[in-house]
Amino acid sequence: MADPIPAPVFRNRSLLDAAQGRVPARPPVWIMRQAGRYLADYRRVRALFPNFLDFCRSPEHVAEVTIQPVDQIGVDAAILFSDILVLLPPMGLQVEFQEKRGPVIANPLRDDAVIAALPEGDLNSELAYVFEGIRLTKRALGDRVPLIGFAGGPFTVASYMVEGGSSKELSKLKALLFSRPEVFAVLMRKLASVTSAYLREQARQGADVITIMDSWAGYLGPEEYRLHVLPHTRAVIQAVKAEFPNLPVVHYANGAPHLLPHFATLGADVLGLDWRADMAAALKAYPKQVFQGNLDPCALYGSPAQIAEKTRALKSLVGARPHVFNLGHGILPDIDPAHARAFVDAVHEAN
Amino acid sequence: MADPIPAPVFRNRSLLDAAQGRVPARPPVWIMRQAGRYLADYRRVRALFPNFLDFCRSPEHVAEVTIQPVDQIGVDAAILFSDILVLLPPMGLQVEFQEKRGPVIANPLRDDAVIAALPEGDLNSELAYVFEGIRLTKRALGDRVPLIGFAGGPFTVASYMVEGGSSKELSKLKALLFSRPEVFAVLMRKLASVTSAYLREQARQGADVITIMDSWAGYLGPEEYRLHVLPHTRAVIQAVKAEFPNLPVVHYANGAPHLLPHFATLGADVLGLDWRADMAAALKAYPKQVFQGNLDPCALYGSPAQIAEKTRALKSLVGARPHVFNLGHGILPDIDPAHARAFVDAVHEAN
Repeated sequence: MADPIPAPVFRNRSLLDAAQGRVPARPPVWIMRQAGRYLADYRRVRALFPNFLDFCRSPEHVAEVTIQPVDQIGVDAAILFSDILVLLPPMGLQVEFQEKRGPVIANPLRDDAVIAALPEGDLNSELAYVFEGIRLTKRALGDRVPLIGFAGGPFTVASYMVEGGSSKELSKLKALLFSRPEVFAVLMRKLASVTSAYLREQARQGADVITIMDSWAGYLGPEEYRLHVLPHTRAVIQAVKAEFPNLPVVHYANGAPHLLPHFATLGADVLGLDWRADMAAALKAYPKQVFQGNLDPCALYGSPAQIAEKTRALKSLVGARPHVFNLGHGILPDIDPAHARAFVDAVHEAN
Repeated sequence: MADPIPAPVFRNRSLLDAAQGRVPARPPVWIMRQAGRYLADYRRVRALFPNFLDFCRSPEHVAEVTIQPVDQIGVDAAILFSDILVLLPPMGLQVEFQEKRGPVIANPLRDDAVIAALPEGDLNSELAYVFEGIRLTKRALGDRVPLIGFAGGPFTVASYMVEGGSSKELSKLKALLFSRPEVFAVLMRKLASVTSAYLREQARQGADVITIMDSWAGYLGPEEYRLHVLPHTRAVIQAVKAEFPNLPVVHYANGAPHLLPHFATLGADVLGLDWRADMAAALKAYPKQVFQGNLDPCALYGSPAQIAEKTRALKSLVGARPHVFNLGHGILPDIDPAHARAFVDAVHEAN
């Protein structure tokens, strides 16, 4: 099916150009978690909501914080403020965000019969607030920069559903994978179908780029990833591409340079690498692939001059190839916004 | 200097043979954290000590739990029960192990002047209980299997000293590295000198193999590791080798397949890989290197038949090369000991 909405003409289309393999007018940069706690204006809005999910469910505030880093840091794209766990309530799991512990799921998946009974397919009616946030953000952004929509990769979302929250080892999810792979596969298939419907609707409502955040895929070895996760993530990308063949899809995983040979077969336009990945080796091994990243988020603890130096080293490594500059993981909450700007400015400066 | 103690003749020397690049009579296997909470007899001894460090400081109990997995699981080596953080009190840092949080350091390093004033060199007089534990264990083990001594890698020990405990991002230590690399280097140099003296004394007292656990090195990208950590870890290995040229040294890091090209230059006899590493690719890229690992610790959640199948797949990958079988990280506390035995038995079974 062809893309039903004519592609918007952006004043700054450097991200779209790079993601589609064209050399952009200027190298594009955005920052994972750029709408986040390091910005005072974000913290002001965040403080209005005792409950984090209520914040995600308020489209006006979502649009406001989504646009803040475009105005304040000068990034080349907005990414919708939301959370990968918004899919959990429509699937029947209660999630709460606690200040110190992060997300806590009241009814984690601990029973094969519960997994078999999970809903699948289009659960978008319960996610209307996300789509309203996209429409409001697009209206406010106008033609300035593209908007990135996103969802978690099925493995990463499954990890929260099974572990019941953040986890050091993902040992419950991996126990399921190793001991009852057929039940694990049911969970992954359902998540892939819900995620596909969710991302397609994000694109229909105006998302110009889609990012799949499979943050914890790196907990798996190459064989387990290839056999048990890759087919489901690929199915999500194929579902998006079937309806929106020209919409760029970015795939990101943290701590997963060992999975790069498999990520390269996902069908994503851009592969986001964390700072562990040897970017020079990746560029050499995959001469046609567009990459995203990979400055160490902790490099922003350095001085602006130190940040500029590291950014220039990355730029010189990438050379003339289309590339999406970013940190290798989300910006940390205690980073000085001036240091985030130093990174963005160094990407943008003429060589 | 030549090894002052004649090499003992072990009834089971498969680990020593493999570590020294000879094809052993039978493939050797040991398990990281094999003296640990998954064993009921370990938990019984552990319960005698409200304070974990008091347990480490009791040589009789150290010897008892060190030998338990040799008797109960059938591993081919004992590894001294201890903790990488025993170095902290001699260096002036107070550490306490809390049930849920793990190690907590009362006076973490937050001041460059404190780092400059840290002691260095031989602090072994405050670690006499470790050496007594080694002597007692050796006496009880006799000629059955070799004893592995160990210490943390300077980077990993530094992470606890600076972060004040376990940490998700190591952001304080990495902030030091990125913002004031010269202060970071002082800390690493001092840790390398204390660790060198400590490991040499372990070898003098009877450790037959030394393992350096640089568990968190994988938090660094390749350039930061190469410039800021590798020289210090290499200095430790060289110090051990200068006195004990024939003593096998194993280097282990978790989540660090991206650093393998650098680990290969450390001068270690054996490189321990976690389960993320593509063992087939590593064997091919380093045809002369002896590796250790790398079954996923979560594979032990599978049935004994599933465990045996995965172990056989790893054995067939390794083929006739000398190899040290192990998990890719420590055994998890809720693993059934029968499953650990299933792994060990599958390594030992005739092909």
